[in-house]
Amino acid sequence: MSIAGTPVTEAYVIALDVGGTAMKGAVVGPDLRPVLTLNRPTPVRDGPQAVVEAIREVLADLDTRALTRGIDPVRAGVVVPGIVDEELGEVRFSANLGFEDLPLARRLKGRLPVTVGHDVRAGGLAEAVLGAAAGTRDVAFLAVGTGIAAALISDDHLLTGSGWAGEIGHLSVEQPGPPCACGATGCLEALASASAIAAELSARTGRPVAGAAEVADRLLVGDRHARAVWDRAVEALAIALAALTTVLAPETVVIGGGLAESGELLLDPLQRRLAARLTFQRPPRLVKAALGERAGCIGAALLAQRAMGR
Amino acid sequence: MSIAGTPVTEAYVIALDVGGTAMKGAVVGPDLRPVLTLNRPTPVRDGPQAVVEAIREVLADLDTRALTRGIDPVRAGVVVPGIVDEELGEVRFSANLGFEDLPLARRLKGRLPVTVGHDVRAGGLAEAVLGAAAGTRDVAFLAVGTGIAAALISDDHLLTGSGWAGEIGHLSVEQPGPPCACGATGCLEALASASAIAAELSARTGRPVAGAAEVADRLLVGDRHARAVWDRAVEALAIALAALTTVLAPETVVIGGGLAESGELLLDPLQRRLAARLTFQRPPRLVKAALGERAGCIGAALLAQRAMGR
Repeated sequence: MSIAGTPVTEAYVIALDVGGTAMKGAVVGPDLRPVLTLNRPTPVRDGPQAVVEAIREVLADLDTRALTRGIDPVRAGVVVPGIVDEELGEVRFSANLGFEDLPLARRLKGRLPVTVGHDVRAGGLAEAVLGAAAGTRDVAFLAVGTGIAAALISDDHLLTGSGWAGEIGHLSVEQPGPPCACGATGCLEALASASAIAAELSARTGRPVAGAAEVADRLLVGDRHARAVWDRAVEALAIALAALTTVLAPETVVIGGGLAESGELLLDPLQRRLAARLTFQRPPRLVKAALGERAGCIGAALLAQRAMGR
Repeated sequence: MSIAGTPVTEAYVIALDVGGTAMKGAVVGPDLRPVLTLNRPTPVRDGPQAVVEAIREVLADLDTRALTRGIDPVRAGVVVPGIVDEELGEVRFSANLGFEDLPLARRLKGRLPVTVGHDVRAGGLAEAVLGAAAGTRDVAFLAVGTGIAAALISDDHLLTGSGWAGEIGHLSVEQPGPPCACGATGCLEALASASAIAAELSARTGRPVAGAAEVADRLLVGDRHARAVWDRAVEALAIALAALTTVLAPETVVIGGGLAESGELLLDPLQRRLAARLTFQRPPRLVKAALGERAGCIGAALLAQRAMGR
């Protein structure tokens, strides 16, 4: 997929990535470069109504600041975590933001029309258009952080399943496996998310573990518990990626989120274990995400640009 | 997905579904109804060169017969089993036809340009446009016969993965499981294909079993071996569909191929076992294929029509 896939536009848009703790906003030019940025905390504890109000405010502030500089944004793109129906601009459910069946695009419409999207799908789109997978047709983007979700892109087409697609964190990879927050057991997320890895090492050693980065650090000094936890997580990811390869055959799999920071420590054994599970299938190229924390915001800008093209 | 998704055309096309034993051809009108049909055996034993020659001949015969009736076809669509790159019109590999890295579209071009596609993907497209899934956006079509393959359609977009997508028959569903022709063990196809079901009952009872239909018949008279084989196959299909639902979230799953003939005997327990494996996911509606053996040929016509629209 290439930048050529996006509609040509001379316009500026507002982009906002709403997370469970912070909102990352920007005014973005036609070349997808930010000309203004603005971050704010997400007032999740004050309830969903307050979150919607805070989003409206940050969009209005970005708009005002842009206008002051002689820039006239024409649309806003807002991405959130959860089950998001991009077509209708509605959030079916967002555990992080406390949203349920919320017509967010309609609620946010003010001076500017608003396109609503899913944070991971938007991030994946950004990686496919101008990030680690630029120039490839079939892309999967895995965000491995507190949870695990995927963005699936086929021929410049973002697969949404009316908001339900990409929940790769809930593929069953080990039976019987550890319990998952979703109610099932043995889900990928319960074995290989950054938080699951840290929690598992903590449980094995009886000492607190700050995060997946600490597990990676201990791995490098030969800690056998860290090794066991890491290997199990890598195997779980290999099982999930083998299933994805068999069914969707991505050319490139981009790994993002906190766990991707460990780089080759993750990607090398994962590529090897994945290859060992394939027979006739085309092995995807595994690469680390290129856009980091900016992916969601750039993706929100892309969604706004594309909505203008319609 | 609706018929509205296809380019409007007033033209006639030639459609050909090339299988391992027979070729099913037709001249098809703008409404996708056949005005002429022609079936021929596939000369697989005579080698890939002879198969290509036989395809050329049947296309030429259909063209001549159409012209004789005052119909002037403008393009042909040819679908084959295997790993097919629709974009390039090339067959990477087809075990059934003996093809390997064959530029089939170029080799078949005569009076008419030829669009080459994959038989199951074309059949799934036909079911999504005018068959059992007409009117739904996200569709999976499972052809359960000698093997198991899927067509995946998202928003009128057929996912191809450069020819590698849809190999759901090789999802790992049981470990350790029976050996599969692909070299792995525990593949869905090794447990739940019509031929695997018949072979397994034969192995358990020491008597020849004609096919999956015989297993279904014995099930109805309370045969405990048939029950065990059937339940294991249904469970394997439920595991695979749970994975597909988690990752792609199809609204409708169309089951076709020989096994679909057993109807509710398959679909009822499968829907139940699938539901038991899901937590938050949206359960797809399972339906029997509507177009039967004609799906591939209608899909070939659709591919030809769409190629004209480009």
